[in-house]
Order: sequence, then structure tokens, then C-alpha cells
Amino acid sequence: MQNIIDDIAAQMALMSDKGKVASYIPQLACVKSDQFAMSIALPNGEIYNAGCAQTLFSIQSISKVFTLTLALGKLGESIWNRVGREPSGDPFNSIVQLEHEQGKPRNPFINAGAIAIADIIMQGHQPKETLAEILQFVRFVANDDSIAIDEKVARSEHETGDRNASLAHFMASFGHFQNPVSAVLGTYFHHCSIAMNTMQLATAGLYLANNGINPLTGYPVISAKRAKRINALMLMCGHYDGSGEFAFRVGLPGKSGVGGGILAIAPGKASIAVWSPGLDTIGNSKLGTLALEMLTQQTGWSVFGD
Amino acid sequence: MQNIIDDIAAQMALMSDKGKVASYIPQLACVKSDQFAMSIALPNGEIYNAGCAQTLFSIQSISKVFTLTLALGKLGESIWNRVGREPSGDPFNSIVQLEHEQGKPRNPFINAGAIAIADIIMQGHQPKETLAEILQFVRFVANDDSIAIDEKVARSEHETGDRNASLAHFMASFGHFQNPVSAVLGTYFHHCSIAMNTMQLATAGLYLANNGINPLTGYPVISAKRAKRINALMLMCGHYDGSGEFAFRVGLPGKSGVGGGILAIAPGKASIAVWSPGLDTIGNSKLGTLALEMLTQQTGWSVFGD
Amino acid sequence: MQNIIDDIAAQMALMSDKGKVASYIPQLACVKSDQFAMSIALPNGEIYNAGCAQTLFSIQSISKVFTLTLALGKLGESIWNRVGREPSGDPFNSIVQLEHEQGKPRNPFINAGAIAIADIIMQGHQPKETLAEILQFVRFVANDDSIAIDEKVARSEHETGDRNASLAHFMASFGHFQNPVSAVLGTYFHHCSIAMNTMQLATAGLYLANNGINPLTGYPVISAKRAKRINALMLMCGHYDGSGEFAFRVGLPGKSGVGGGILAIAPGKASIAVWSPGLDTIGNSKLGTLALEMLTQQTGWSVFGD
Amino acid sequence: MQNIIDDIAAQMALMSDKGKVASYIPQLACVKSDQFAMSIALPNGEIYNAGCAQTLFSIQSISKVFTLTLALGKLGESIWNRVGREPSGDPFNSIVQLEHEQGKPRNPFINAGAIAIADIIMQGHQPKETLAEILQFVRFVANDDSIAIDEKVARSEHETGDRNASLAHFMASFGHFQNPVSAVLGTYFHHCSIAMNTMQLATAGLYLANNGINPLTGYPVISAKRAKRINALMLMCGHYDGSGEFAFRVGLPGKSGVGGGILAIAPGKASIAVWSPGLDTIGNSKLGTLALEMLTQQTGWSVFGD
Repeated sequence: MQNIIDDIAAQMALMSDKGKVASYIPQLACVKSDQFAMSIALPNGEIYNAGCAQTLFSIQSISKVFTLTLALGKLGESIWNRVGREPSGDPFNSIVQLEHEQGKPRNPFINAGAIAIADIIMQGHQPKETLAEILQFVRFVANDDSIAIDEKVARSEHETGDRNASLAHFMASFGHFQNPVSAVLGTYFHHCSIAMNTMQLATAGLYLANNGINPLTGYPVISAKRAKRINALMLMCGHYDGSGEFAFRVGLPGKSGVGGGILAIAPGKASIAVWSPGLDTIGNSKLGTLALEMLTQQTGWSVFGD
Repeated sequence: MQNIIDDIAAQMALMSDKGKVASYIPQLACVKSDQFAMSIALPNGEIYNAGCAQTLFSIQSISKVFTLTLALGKLGESIWNRVGREPSGDPFNSIVQLEHEQGKPRNPFINAGAIAIADIIMQGHQPKETLAEILQFVRFVANDDSIAIDEKVARSEHETGDRNASLAHFMASFGHFQNPVSAVLGTYFHHCSIAMNTMQLATAGLYLANNGINPLTGYPVISAKRAKRINALMLMCGHYDGSGEFAFRVGLPGKSGVGGGILAIAPGKASIAVWSPGLDTIGNSKLGTLALEMLTQQTGWSVFGD
Repeated sequence: MQNIIDDIAAQMALMSDKGKVASYIPQLACVKSDQFAMSIALPNGEIYNAGCAQTLFSIQSISKVFTLTLALGKLGESIWNRVGREPSGDPFNSIVQLEHEQGKPRNPFINAGAIAIADIIMQGHQPKETLAEILQFVRFVANDDSIAIDEKVARSEHETGDRNASLAHFMASFGHFQNPVSAVLGTYFHHCSIAMNTMQLATAGLYLANNGINPLTGYPVISAKRAKRINALMLMCGHYDGSGEFAFRVGLPGKSGVGGGILAIAPGKASIAVWSPGLDTIGNSKLGTLALEMLTQQTGWSVFGD
Repeated sequence: MQNIIDDIAAQMALMSDKGKVASYIPQLACVKSDQFAMSIALPNGEIYNAGCAQTLFSIQSISKVFTLTLALGKLGESIWNRVGREPSGDPFNSIVQLEHEQGKPRNPFINAGAIAIADIIMQGHQPKETLAEILQFVRFVANDDSIAIDEKVARSEHETGDRNASLAHFMASFGHFQNPVSAVLGTYFHHCSIAMNTMQLATAGLYLANNGINPLTGYPVISAKRAKRINALMLMCGHYDGSGEFAFRVGLPGKSGVGGGILAIAPGKASIAVWSPGLDTIGNSKLGTLALEMLTQQTGWSVFGD
């Protein structure tokens, strides 16, 4: 396994086209594009790393996996009244579908859906309390209390967050929100700004590879059935309108973030985190996707066949 | 396995809401709704049946799996210039996306995509020759030379096929078609009218569960890599705008047909065919989906975890 | 003329279906639906009234005619870089077209377009100053210094203005705004809350019926060419996705407001204001439209023939 | 008047950018782009001509004005059950709106709407009989029995008519058609291929400028009310998604054809035909629009003010 991952990292270093770092959030635009890290966490506790696996990056939309888990834990299947579970066929920040479907987002992984999940989790509490709860949960699944929010990134997102504000106000106009729009946006921008490295992120995803149980602590995070369902949603919707391409090439449930990270789950086998800040045209990590494609080819970990 | 499948069939018989038989193709509307069949074919050659597993039904859109396999075999990855591989987020017969994307269908499993695949396969030949080739291929993978097209159904589809004719002419208006629209439609309507029973269909899907090799004959049908990719497409797009729901509940690559059949693949484990003509509101077999959901719960065959 | 207008008012009083008062702005929902007023101002200074022509109502979107005039006066044809001049074919608050056309609204009379015009007029000033300027302009064309903003309505709009906030943030996300979103919305909500009666409103529209010159004062408000163009825009876009219907039935340039008012212009002949708070399903005054239809039938004032 | 029209023609001859001749119908692509003609017919029988006013051209979509008149005459207001009367905001051949609105076209001047009108007129007859009726009507209003269909153009349209076939089949799939799709398309392609010169066309439009009565013969063609309504529809929808621009610049009801012709109506004053085959990007005659803009500026004929 260490050979495989080292080999992948070596090949990534040779790639000339590393994609383009996201520029619409100024704070993310500063990150250097020639960085790469990959970590593979196994249910037995082993973890394999390559590249700068200890460098923190902004997990951005990958945080949606954790807030969805939290929302399911707190409110169960009732959350599906507020958010659908179908791929949208549209970009991550599209608003067209919201108008056609009365303010109900297609799934919890597009921005509108994750903003709705933030509203669901809050249950009348302040952003601060909700963020403390989210952070506690991420620390729990990652088994690492040092994980924190990067306030600079959160502020940067807020300042350039008009598109997300538009989505939130649009949903609120249908009377769907239980908390003030500004509070929900504050929660959303901050949980997207959690900083992690690939070691922490791979560890944090283990419960999804292990039927809902954190294998390091033995604690159940979520039921096996819900772990499967989150994996299904990750495969169907985790890469926006590039989800089909990711399933086609990589063949694993995965969730990307605009910071260049991807969390991928090989059910029963491994939780994999990869990071490279350069993005493809759809907004998913270019080298990250390529590295995962190579990994599943060599390990036979695709859910669609060896 | 036989116990599991018998139990499922028994439970299905008790269901009061069996869905609604498709009415827009008159010939399909005659089928009685209280029928159910399920067949599970294993790579080792074993096959388990329940219900009326020898009753022929119209496989309809399930035939798209076979024409896609054929097109990939004949023309390789170049077919992706003509057809995308993303979920559409739209109903099976939607034309909106075609206008927004210059006549290129999102994937080979929505009607527009399958019509484009029919055009690709024809390569200037007549519908008759192309249909002979498709039929030969289906007989080969099903290992059964008795499989045939139901001409009555084909004629019925033709007479009520305005929506499909609209899709075909729309694509042709972009200069994408290499064959006359009427010939392509003739091919499409006929391959959708292939009649099979669940035993034949489960057997026919085995190559997708077995890395591209037909385990009964040992013949390679398609490369392992392509088998995986077809499975990925089935999971992402096989149930139209109900694909997310199917992944969420069943967790297997699957392709539904408006005749009430579903072909589902558990990679490395089994090929499953189920048939019950009553449909849900999206157009997928109601009891068929439910039976598959029960099966994966009891066998742990979901690709997303045990 | 007085006979005609009295007769129309009498007939309106007999109508059993007076439409439904707008409910989404709570302050507007209080207005009683069985009110009707009509005023016809002629370029020679005569004015004919019927019904409660002195009762103040919220002019709402009719204010967009005045802000457009002001924006054209201040910035000339350059405003068309920010706002189009085609009918949208969509409801007044639709956001779909904005996504398809990179945040540029189709015309200045749908909400998004009027919000963009508010941003254009502000030119870095505070809402207060801008509103003073708008109010001064409306008083000038109406020749009446008593006209004011109804602060209760403005506040009510603000509280329920999520849809408009969504539109504004959406446009701002393309970098189109020169002023803070909240300031632009404040300006927009307040100018929509100007209260006028039909006498004032009919008088205020006279410059559009008189080649841009206020016939009461002799002052030029706008060039004759621009007056024609504003009339063209009112005919094409003044009633949202009911503009075709209004042109078909009434045949005059007109602008409706959700408060139940309509300003209609018979070029060279008259400026007509009508008010009845009950709306049709599209959001235009039900009796107001009917009254105007009767008026153009009896006067031959339609621009499309006697 | 002769001076005005001569002056306009002279200025048109000097224009360097004459637009691009339509290329998607091969037979139209042969027409030389540097041609210009203009005819102004007055209700008193006078007619003023400039340029090649006797050269025949394909009237294309301008024929939709005559088929709409015919349909209203035959079936009255019931036609509005099949076709709407709102601008679509979409290109002439768009299908998106049809899907969103269950196969009912927005108005009779977009292609889908005119195809529906062709179906309405046929009433079970053969295309030949229907075309004879349409031709007879056009000859009647133009007071010229020499007007004929250009069969070469009709055939060329048929061969490249996939987009229109798509629209027709789409509507037929909702069960809206009373005649076979191929017969309706045959009727449509042929009436679009009527050849006329600007003298004939200006004369043919006189009934719309004269309250529904043909001033040359004194025969009523249609009621005054319906003439107004057709004018309203021409203004709102006659130039597809360029209708707003035409109203803004020219200010007259008008209908354009892809052959480069435009028929414009100044109610009570004149019927104007202009022809120049070069088109703008939306598909309307470039010089034709410019010539009409100059005409209304100099004559004060705009319906929106002198």
C-alpha cells in the first residue's frame, strides 16, 4: 500500500497541468497550486500517507458530509422533507432548480442543500453554539481535538458570499427557514472553513467505510444503514455536475471541496483523503481525481468491480 | 438464497399498492399488474427464481444496457463525443437539456441518449441488419437463441412515439445523425421491444457482475474496465430522475424499463432481474424496486456497505 | 369623457369577482378589495375622475417607470449595459433568466431589473439621499409636493423581502453592483412604497403621453425619443408575463403594481391611472385591467387601431 | 413620402454591414445580400416604392400573420386554447417552453405556434387543399392573383426541417394535433415558401392598418377588434426574442421573416414592407429594421408618440 501511494504521489509531482486554484474566495486563491497529499486510513487502524499529509487546507464542501451525518443523527429521516436526494445535473451554485421546485434543494451536497442542512442543525441556536457542535463532531470522528476553523477563510467567504446569500434568501422566501438567513449563512461559511490535513480527513471518514462505527474508538457514529445511504449520496451527488465523471473514472463515493480536497470511501476497505488545490473546470481537484483513479485501478477498490 | 427470494416473492404478493401499468404505449397497457418475477444469477452458474420467472415481458429501456455495450465494443470511447455520462436530473423523455447543450444527450440511458446510441451502432446499415446484430448480441449474453422482438409492441411504440421522434429530430437538427431519423427510430423502437423473462435477463447481465466475462461460456464480452464503467453509468443514470432514490434504497447499479423490469448488478456477486409491471410515479417498477431493496438488506450486497 | 368614466366605475361596482388582494406583503393585505378609482389626465390640463380618486394606495412597481426615467436622465443609454429591454416571458420575481444570462436582467420592469436601476441611480449615495431625489422627481412630474413614502409598507416589504434579496445578491455575485446590496434593497423597497392616488398618478404620467414634456408646467422631463422608448418598454414588459394579454385586451403601454394600481399611456391623448386592489393570478389588478379595456374600446385609444 | 423612402434606400445602399443571409435553409443561402426594397401602402390606395420592389423573395415567417388571420376567421377565439399570446423570451425555434407548458406554444409567431395554427387551419383536409386556401387568402388581401409558392424553397425547408419536425412531434405527443404531423409540416413548410415582392406585401398588410377592411376592394377581411389584436401580437411577438428591440427602435407592430422581409403596420396610417436578406444575430433583417427605424423617426408613425 505504501508503495502504491508513493508511486501515485511521484507521478502527480510530474504532471504539468495541475489545474487552477479557486479564485472566487480570495483567501483560497493564495494557496500554492503545486502541493499534493494523500492519506489512506484502513479500518484496522493503519494509515498510509504521501506528500504533505500534515499540511492543513480548507475542507470547504467536504464539511457537508459531516453536517449531513450530524443532521441525520439529530433529526433522522425527517430531513428529507427539506432536502432531496437526487443528482441535480447543475453546477454547485445553481439556483434554477430551486425556482422550478419551490425552494427545495435537490440534495444535501449542492450549496443550497447544505445551507438548508445548516438551518436544520441550528434548531434555534446561535451560529456559535452550532459551530461548536459541528467542530466537536468532526474532532470526534477524526479523533483529533486540534481541528479548528480558519477564521480568515470564513471572513473571506462571507465577503464574497453573494451567491450563497442569494440561495439562502431564495429558500427563505418560501418560508422554509427556521433561523435568520444571516445566522444560517454564518454557520455555513464557518463550517466550510474548517481546516484539516489529509491524515485527519481520512481518519474522519472511516466511519463511512466501516458501517457507521468509528473503528479507532469503537463508538457508533451512525447506523450501518445510514452510513450506506450517505455513501450513496456521495457517489450520486458528491461532485456536482461532475459526479458521473467521478463515478465513471474513480468508482467510489466521494465528496470534493473547492479547496482542492476530496474524501473518498471504499466501503469495507478504506477511507481516503487526497488534496491538491488545482481544480478542473467543474471545480473538483484535478490531481486529486487522477490520484484516486490510479488508486482504484491498482487496488481494485471501485465499487463497480475489481 | 432460494429462501430469501421465495420470502421476498411472498411479501410482494401481499402488497396492496402494486403501482400503475404504463399506459402511453397501448400494447403495454394490456399487461396485468399483479405479476411478479425475480431471478438471481450467480457467476458460478447457479440461478435462483421466484414468481413467474418464465413469463416474457417487454424489456424496454433495459435494452439500452445492451446497445451501450455493443456501441462501446464497436466504436470504443469515441462514443462519448456523441453522448455524455452525467445524470440529467430530468425525466426520461425531457428535451430541455438537449436545447441547452446543443443536442448532446447527458447520458446513454435517457431516451435521447439511447436514440443517439442506436444511430451510432447503425453505421449506415438498415434497421433490419442492426436489429439482427443487437438480437444476436442479446442472445449471446443470455446464452439463449430463442429471444426475439415482440413486433406488436414495436408497432405500438411507433404509433405513439411522437415524443421520441421529437428527440430524434431535435438531435438531427444539429447535424449529429449519420442515419435517417426514421431508420434510427425504427431501430430504437424495435430494440426496446425485445421480450425476455427474468431468467434470461439475469443471465444476460452476468458479464457486468463478472468483470466483463460471460461466466457461462467463458467468453469475454467487454473489458473489465468497461464493465465497471457501464455499472457506474447504471448506478448514476439507470433510473432517470429516480436514480438517486434507487441508489439510496437499493444501492446497486440498475437499469429499469417501462415494461416493469429492472436489471441490477452486484459486482462480483450476482446479476439480478426482477419484473412487476406496476410503476411508480417516475416510471420505475414499484414492487421491483422494493424487492431489490429487501434483497440487498438481507444479503448485504449494496455497493455502499454490508 | 366624464360619462364614459362614470359608466365604467358603475360597471366595476357590479362585478362580483374583484380578484384577490396581494397577501405576501402583510401591510398590503389589509387593504379592502372593493375599492375602485380611475383618473384620466389630458395634455390640455383637464382631468376626469371616478371612484375614490383621492384615496392613497401603494404604487409599488409603478414606481419603476419613474426610476427608469430618472436613470435615463442621469446616465443616458449606458444603462442598457446593465439591464436589457426584452420581455422575459417569466414571472416578476423569477431568477432563472438571471442565471442563464450572467446576472443581467431582461428589462427594467421585472424586479431584478428595477433593483439594478436602483443601484444605477444611487451612484455611491446613501438610500436616504437617493430616495429624496426619487421623491422630488415624482413630486415634480405629479406637480404635487405632498407625495410621500409609506414607511409602514416599506418596513413590511423589508421584512418579507427574501425573494428580492435573493435577486439582488445574485446580481451582486457577478460583480455588477456599485453599492452595498442592503442599501440598494433599502432604496428599492422604499421607492415601491410611495403612496399616491389616481389623480396624482395620472398627472405624473402625462410627460409620457406628451412627448416627454410636462404639459402642466411646460418643463421637459425627458426627450421625446426617450418618452417613446419608455412607452415601448411599458407595452412590452409592464405587466410581466401578462404583458401580451394586456396589449391584446387594452392595447396601451401600461405598468402595473401589486398594490392594484395601473398607469396607462395613450400617446398624444391621455395618461390614465386606475386602482383596484384585487389582483388576477399573474399579479395585475383585475378590475383595473377590465376598466382600461372598456375605456380603449369606447375611446378608440388603443395604439393598435381605433 | 417618395423623398423620404428614396433617401432611406440611398442610405441603405451605403451601409457596409448588411448582415448575414440565412444559411440553414440552403435555397435561401443563394440570395445575394446587397439587395434592398421598401414599399409603403397607404389606405387611400397610394403606394410608394424604393429599391427592387418588384423582386420576389421568400416571405417565410411573415406568412404567419396571414395564417393567424385565416385561423381567427375560421375558428374565432377558440384558437387561443391551442396557442398562447405572450412573448416567449426565447429564440424562434426554442422547445424549452413547450416542455414546461405541456406542449402549448406561447404565441402564434414562434415556429411552434405557427405549426399549431397550420394544424388548426387544416381541419382534416389535405395540405394541398389547405395551401390552396392560404394562397387564395394571400392573393385576396394583396389583390394580386399571381402570388405563388416557391416549390424549390419548400423542398429545401423540408430537407432541413428537423428542428420544426421536432417541435411538431413534441406537440403531437401531448395529443394536441388533429392532423398527421407530416401533413401539418408539409402545410407549414409550403406557406412559409410563398414568394412576394414588397409591393405585394405592403398591399397585403393594408387590412391591418385599416381596421380590418381591405381599402382597395372595400371588403372586410376581419373585424376591427381582431385587426387590433393581431397588431398587438405582432408588436409583442413578431420579432421573437428581438421583439423588445424592434418596439424600442421602430415602435410599430411588425413581423419578420428569415428571408429578410419585414411587414410593419402603422395603424390608421400605412402598411410598410421592407426587404433586405442580410440578418442580424437574432434572425431579423438588419437593414430592414434600420430602414423602418429611420422611417418612423421621420414620419412620427411610432405607436408610442410622434
